[in-house]
Amino acid sequence: MYVLKKTTMSALGKVQTTIKNELASEKIIQEIYEYIFNAEGKKTRALISLLASESQDIKLNNRIILASIIELLHTATLVHDDVVDQSEQRRGTRSVNQVWTNSYSVLIGDFIYSKAFILMVKLGIPSILDELAKATNDIARGEIIQLDLFEKKQPIELNGLLKISYLKTGRLFEASAKTGAMLACRSKEEVKTFGLLGKALGTAFQIQDDILDYEALKLNTGKPALKDFKEGKVTFPLYFALQHANAKDKNFIMSLLGQSKISKKDQNKIYQLIQNDKTQKDINALLEKYTKETLRHLNKLKHHACYNEMIDLITFSKIRKI
Amino acid sequence: MYVLKKTTMSALGKVQTTIKNELASEKIIQEIYEYIFNAEGKKTRALISLLASESQDIKLNNRIILASIIELLHTATLVHDDVVDQSEQRRGTRSVNQVWTNSYSVLIGDFIYSKAFILMVKLGIPSILDELAKATNDIARGEIIQLDLFEKKQPIELNGLLKISYLKTGRLFEASAKTGAMLACRSKEEVKTFGLLGKALGTAFQIQDDILDYEALKLNTGKPALKDFKEGKVTFPLYFALQHANAKDKNFIMSLLGQSKISKKDQNKIYQLIQNDKTQKDINALLEKYTKETLRHLNKLKHHACYNEMIDLITFSKIRKI
Repeated sequence: MYVLKKTTMSALGKVQTTIKNELASEKIIQEIYEYIFNAEGKKTRALISLLASESQDIKLNNRIILASIIELLHTATLVHDDVVDQSEQRRGTRSVNQVWTNSYSVLIGDFIYSKAFILMVKLGIPSILDELAKATNDIARGEIIQLDLFEKKQPIELNGLLKISYLKTGRLFEASAKTGAMLACRSKEEVKTFGLLGKALGTAFQIQDDILDYEALKLNTGKPALKDFKEGKVTFPLYFALQHANAKDKNFIMSLLGQSKISKKDQNKIYQLIQNDKTQKDINALLEKYTKETLRHLNKLKHHACYNEMIDLITFSKIRKI
Repeated sequence: MYVLKKTTMSALGKVQTTIKNELASEKIIQEIYEYIFNAEGKKTRALISLLASESQDIKLNNRIILASIIELLHTATLVHDDVVDQSEQRRGTRSVNQVWTNSYSVLIGDFIYSKAFILMVKLGIPSILDELAKATNDIARGEIIQLDLFEKKQPIELNGLLKISYLKTGRLFEASAKTGAMLACRSKEEVKTFGLLGKALGTAFQIQDDILDYEALKLNTGKPALKDFKEGKVTFPLYFALQHANAKDKNFIMSLLGQSKISKKDQNKIYQLIQNDKTQKDINALLEKYTKETLRHLNKLKHHACYNEMIDLITFSKIRKI
């Protein structure tokens, strides 16, 4: 794991408290809300926001509120995604749609979204509101494009994958970094650099996430393996594997893609196809490309208090197993 | 139908155009979005907003944008509600979850919500943003409470029904009237009166909606009949009918409540129980109470350009069959 300064750690802890303090008077809402936020995620987006907003001149409380808003938005999208993907697990516990039903998930997702907007209005910075409203819209766009590709069994190109990955993941990373920098009243140029850093980091993060979906077969992290594959999603590693597979292996993959039950033997074969040298070379090169791009943008922010922590976060994102 | 001034009619038409101009570059999003907004609703909430914002000093365009925001928010909740209720019809055509799937509905609902927030930020009035973010949260609260009552088969009291009806319907009517008045820079006192008017009108509107769910059995309006009943919802007419029914009839009702298939004979019997004199007296008294309350608030707004149109709208809400 990366090393954070004590002050950053403490602020990240307060994000959790801030979110949990957003009470509803109804027992059932409180129950689901607490269930969701008791399972703590990595809070990567909240952390990026906190790092980008670090400044002597800005009230710590406002930085925590902004990071909490971002974590709320992210969680709302996860709750809705779990309905779309019919997921059974989220953050190591059963997902809301499993413990309750899809209907509860749809509505509690809306509840969390609108809580985030209420806090945004309270923060009261129009440029931040604008960026986060647009990011939320882009995330929904990315999810719809991905769903539609799957439903219509359309083939996908690398550019299409990069677009979906940007909208689904990169966009909120970008908005987290940008709005953090906006809150800290940084120059237009610096806000832009923070945004580009977030965008590239988000893509690298998504690539590693896609890799871990296959690696989970061999790791004992508790993360379910082949989740993307079973949901029928062509992600970066599978895209490259399909490029390099012969006709027989390609047919094998396509016949299993989207199946919820896959034998151990077939799982191992899928894993081997992902482990193919050329596939590994391509996927690692792509991850390296976006990691380098992230570092290139960070290079312009050397004088910032967050520099060392950002370096750690970027390095971690590339090698993380969780 | 109520009579609107030419200028109001024209503004309401422009709400439809404004919404339809909110394009997305992706074909699939555009397709679903257009499908949703081609089926025009009554736009009651948008109309209330336009009436409350009528003022010589305010740009027509901003009034149309606000009314469009409200219509977008309302539509997003309907798209998500149709998932929760597994509805087959909406605004006279097949609902999104039927033509596409629940997954598309969840995501396109999020897309529409965030479009509304983007437009709100563009309008740039903090008090309006605050009111609409809170109203959106309250609507989700109301829906969760209603869902939970149904899932847990909990008995409900009149006060509980009034609370749900306020959160689900009255709250956005209230916000439509309030934010319209805010846009027109009316006094704090008048904004409050507009809000109370909207709240009471929303409740009256919901009561009539509940009545129409049963009346649809005898009317040829194309509206599906007993939709609430088949979804297991105890609404105002059914609540009173249960109060006045003998043990046998009560058992009969409870045994059918929430069943998706009900024979013509049983449907007629349910209708007869709703038509019971005492039930009709109670439901009409409740509708009258909220209509009178609406008019009492409107009475304070006699000098407003919207007065006559509001009177028409209130009268229509009480007798409408659509």
